[in-house]
Amino acid sequence: MITGKNYIGNELSGIGNKSHKTINAKLNLENSINFIEATSNEINQAVTLAHESFQVYKNISGKEKASFLNCIADEILALGDELIEVFVLESGLPEGRAVGERSRTVFQLQAFANMIQTDEWKNNIIEKALPDRKPSPKPDIRKTYIPIGPIAVFTPSNFPLAYSSAGGDTASALASGCSVIVKAHYMHSGTAELVSSAIIKSVKKTGMPNGVFSNINGGIEVGQNLVKNLKIKGVGFTGSKSGGRSIYDIGSKREEPIPVFSEMGSVNPVIISPKSIDSKSIEIAKILSESITLGAGQFCTNPGLIIVVEKENTNSFIDNVIDNLIKKGSQCMIHKNIKESYLKNIEYISKQKGVKVLSNTDIELKGNYISSQINSVLAKDFLVNSKMHQEVFGPFSLIVKCKDENELIKVIDSLEGQLTGSLFAEEGELKEFYSIIDKLKSKVGRIIFNGVPTGVEVSQAMTHGGPYPASSDSRYTSVGLDSIKRWVRPITYQDWPIDFLPSDLQ
Amino acid sequence: MITGKNYIGNELSGIGNKSHKTINAKLNLENSINFIEATSNEINQAVTLAHESFQVYKNISGKEKASFLNCIADEILALGDELIEVFVLESGLPEGRAVGERSRTVFQLQAFANMIQTDEWKNNIIEKALPDRKPSPKPDIRKTYIPIGPIAVFTPSNFPLAYSSAGGDTASALASGCSVIVKAHYMHSGTAELVSSAIIKSVKKTGMPNGVFSNINGGIEVGQNLVKNLKIKGVGFTGSKSGGRSIYDIGSKREEPIPVFSEMGSVNPVIISPKSIDSKSIEIAKILSESITLGAGQFCTNPGLIIVVEKENTNSFIDNVIDNLIKKGSQCMIHKNIKESYLKNIEYISKQKGVKVLSNTDIELKGNYISSQINSVLAKDFLVNSKMHQEVFGPFSLIVKCKDENELIKVIDSLEGQLTGSLFAEEGELKEFYSIIDKLKSKVGRIIFNGVPTGVEVSQAMTHGGPYPASSDSRYTSVGLDSIKRWVRPITYQDWPIDFLPSDLQ
Repeated sequence: MITGKNYIGNELSGIGNKSHKTINAKLNLENSINFIEATSNEINQAVTLAHESFQVYKNISGKEKASFLNCIADEILALGDELIEVFVLESGLPEGRAVGERSRTVFQLQAFANMIQTDEWKNNIIEKALPDRKPSPKPDIRKTYIPIGPIAVFTPSNFPLAYSSAGGDTASALASGCSVIVKAHYMHSGTAELVSSAIIKSVKKTGMPNGVFSNINGGIEVGQNLVKNLKIKGVGFTGSKSGGRSIYDIGSKREEPIPVFSEMGSVNPVIISPKSIDSKSIEIAKILSESITLGAGQFCTNPGLIIVVEKENTNSFIDNVIDNLIKKGSQCMIHKNIKESYLKNIEYISKQKGVKVLSNTDIELKGNYISSQINSVLAKDFLVNSKMHQEVFGPFSLIVKCKDENELIKVIDSLEGQLTGSLFAEEGELKEFYSIIDKLKSKVGRIIFNGVPTGVEVSQAMTHGGPYPASSDSRYTSVGLDSIKRWVRPITYQDWPIDFLPSDLQ
Repeated sequence: MITGKNYIGNELSGIGNKSHKTINAKLNLENSINFIEATSNEINQAVTLAHESFQVYKNISGKEKASFLNCIADEILALGDELIEVFVLESGLPEGRAVGERSRTVFQLQAFANMIQTDEWKNNIIEKALPDRKPSPKPDIRKTYIPIGPIAVFTPSNFPLAYSSAGGDTASALASGCSVIVKAHYMHSGTAELVSSAIIKSVKKTGMPNGVFSNINGGIEVGQNLVKNLKIKGVGFTGSKSGGRSIYDIGSKREEPIPVFSEMGSVNPVIISPKSIDSKSIEIAKILSESITLGAGQFCTNPGLIIVVEKENTNSFIDNVIDNLIKKGSQCMIHKNIKESYLKNIEYISKQKGVKVLSNTDIELKGNYISSQINSVLAKDFLVNSKMHQEVFGPFSLIVKCKDENELIKVIDSLEGQLTGSLFAEEGELKEFYSIIDKLKSKVGRIIFNGVPTGVEVSQAMTHGGPYPASSDSRYTSVGLDSIKRWVRPITYQDWPIDFLPSDLQ
């Protein structure tokens, strides 16, 4: 049962007087439950509990933490149909997506659980003493990693499960030994409360300390209060550039600045070589339009920029993309606010100098349904107008037509940092693309050959992050097993008796 | 020959009208050479060259970069006596220290060179495709690490060589594939220019691109200009808390925020158990007083806080420490500004409520010579006055007397983040110290048993950094081979043909 309250540690609490309702995205009507925003007092209580429980939780063995994560996975599955129904109701996304995202969430928790069964992931270093070294003896020094403290997690609108209450940030932080406070996204507060109930059940079942997890409702002010609290030691954020930057700024202006990992999305440029268009126009148009419309385009890896060198077949390729998009029909966005900014943004872009609207959305659609849109522009106009470089969240892509490879390099060079960059080309022509690939590499966290950016593997080799503003610190990933590195710091033990070293350093 | 100019890439340049002289620390007299501050134009030129050379340098093989680093080591040694003489002249430190620090500098360069001969240090991850995986095939994904871009290095007053122009920050950044601009410390501009000449010689000898290294003179304004330049992508700083924080703030307020690793020192608490004092009073007093006075106390790992539980033998132990310090006599500090703030700080601390001056410096000493000082205070007074918690740079230590173990834990809990924490105890009593060790761990980057904090190994297991304000990001170290991790970011290759992958991912 969804109560509309916050989880302050293991207890449900809702003493505030501000509240909101989620909406039925398909009908654009309010759902019935009132979600009560956390008060300053409740936030402080949650942080105090997170701080106190951290003193215990940080020293719990990897195996015990793994049982906790596995239990969360089980309890999420045990929520059964209710979770899927609330997910669909709050997001307007299809049931298949809900089921798929639940699988991903469960898989992430289990993957971290599996990893922390042993201490191998820390890559501890043991250097034994060299008492006879000249000119001075070398002490025994051993390095391991310990968790940094309570972590605040800000969840995005577009992943009610996999990047939310029990998503990648929470799973990696709990795996590292940090306690977690989630500020749930107001668009899916019900999904968040259900998942949080599964986490709290697991806290109790596996004997974890009260406060190792809290889930609070609220807006900007609640989030700011949370990050300003000096007991919070790190932040994971997924969302918009403006939101991510403002949280980053709060974190770095504190008396004690803290690491804030903001994943803020990108336009994910896709370069398509002339030879690719010649040989695989239909095939590429198909997978590209599928990627553009996946989840109504509401992915941070959505391909928002298609870069081509204009040749004979370019226009027929674009026609192929548009044909595919038209076949897709309309799609429901996750919230009226998302729909409204999508419509505002595509209108804004369409009015920029040189932009042609190739397929448009001027049909009146019910609820939060929208159509995809493709625009095109010449590189010379794109290069001088950074307004076109910004992400449009939704099933939109801008095709930039370059007159030659040199102009194409200039286009890539003009871009901000990106999560991904893709190149469609024939293997035989790759040598000619050396400079383009080198330039693209310098802008992205993941570089893809003959594929689309949507679809982010959860594994150790994944990088989901990139130069600013794709993320606030390109040295980390927010997806995959290495995302745990955001929440740990090294500590070196010097000359300790073996028996008093942590077991993984003995 | 020292010219007083800046190295803007390979060229000596000194077009500005601001200048300064270094001082002869022992005599407190100005040395003859005028060091010309870099102008805004020169800074921009250096950054432009660093940006351009980075486009080439980042793709140079590890082996070639290793030759470059080894060449720098050789060229520093080839500077011969002139380097040692200038070091001693500018710092007032003894010749033995100059020779030792040169060895450390050379060793660091060679250690990084050795590490980057292969790509093993990156711990690349290769995950091959699983085309038959259900429900969707797994792509081929491979992760490696690439350098982030031009790095600004701010050097401290206390290490004219090992943490300066060719010190740990420069060596690790060059090893990573980043270009470097050093803002040399005004107290040893001559040493900096000499070392820079050795680096520039190596740039030319090994065919590295012009601009991969620059060395500029200047004060706060020059440093701010440098960090504000959007082509700078990271900063390494060693120095005071106020300086490190101001550089961190500039880096995080930029339109594109960048990682700033500031190592800002600490008081390095040393806890001495009653049983240790009973059994090893003379021995501990000796190594402790040697650590306090090493390099006239001008180390960021200087033990500035000694914490004891007051028992029968405590006062005789303190007397032993003082006896040792008196035997040490006076020492020359590296600059009149350092001497003046030392004298100001010890006077300030001595006036705090409850502080007793146990040995003092009220003798008139010539040049920049000073005496060490030991004060004591009861824990109850220390706990309520954070002014006593601040670092005094120099041969000073404050002894905090606790009435019992509980008060000792409160003292540790009251401290800010530290580079190191040490515990002198008998192995047999360690079990009783569990809570103390756990609390100390949460405050430090390195925890030492029966040893002093001075002496920082350059190896992979070292952590030189710690919770704020010991450093601005406790997740990194500025000493040892892992310090290279500050300057690289992950990149994932998805589905690339083997031949077009970087060689270390094939």
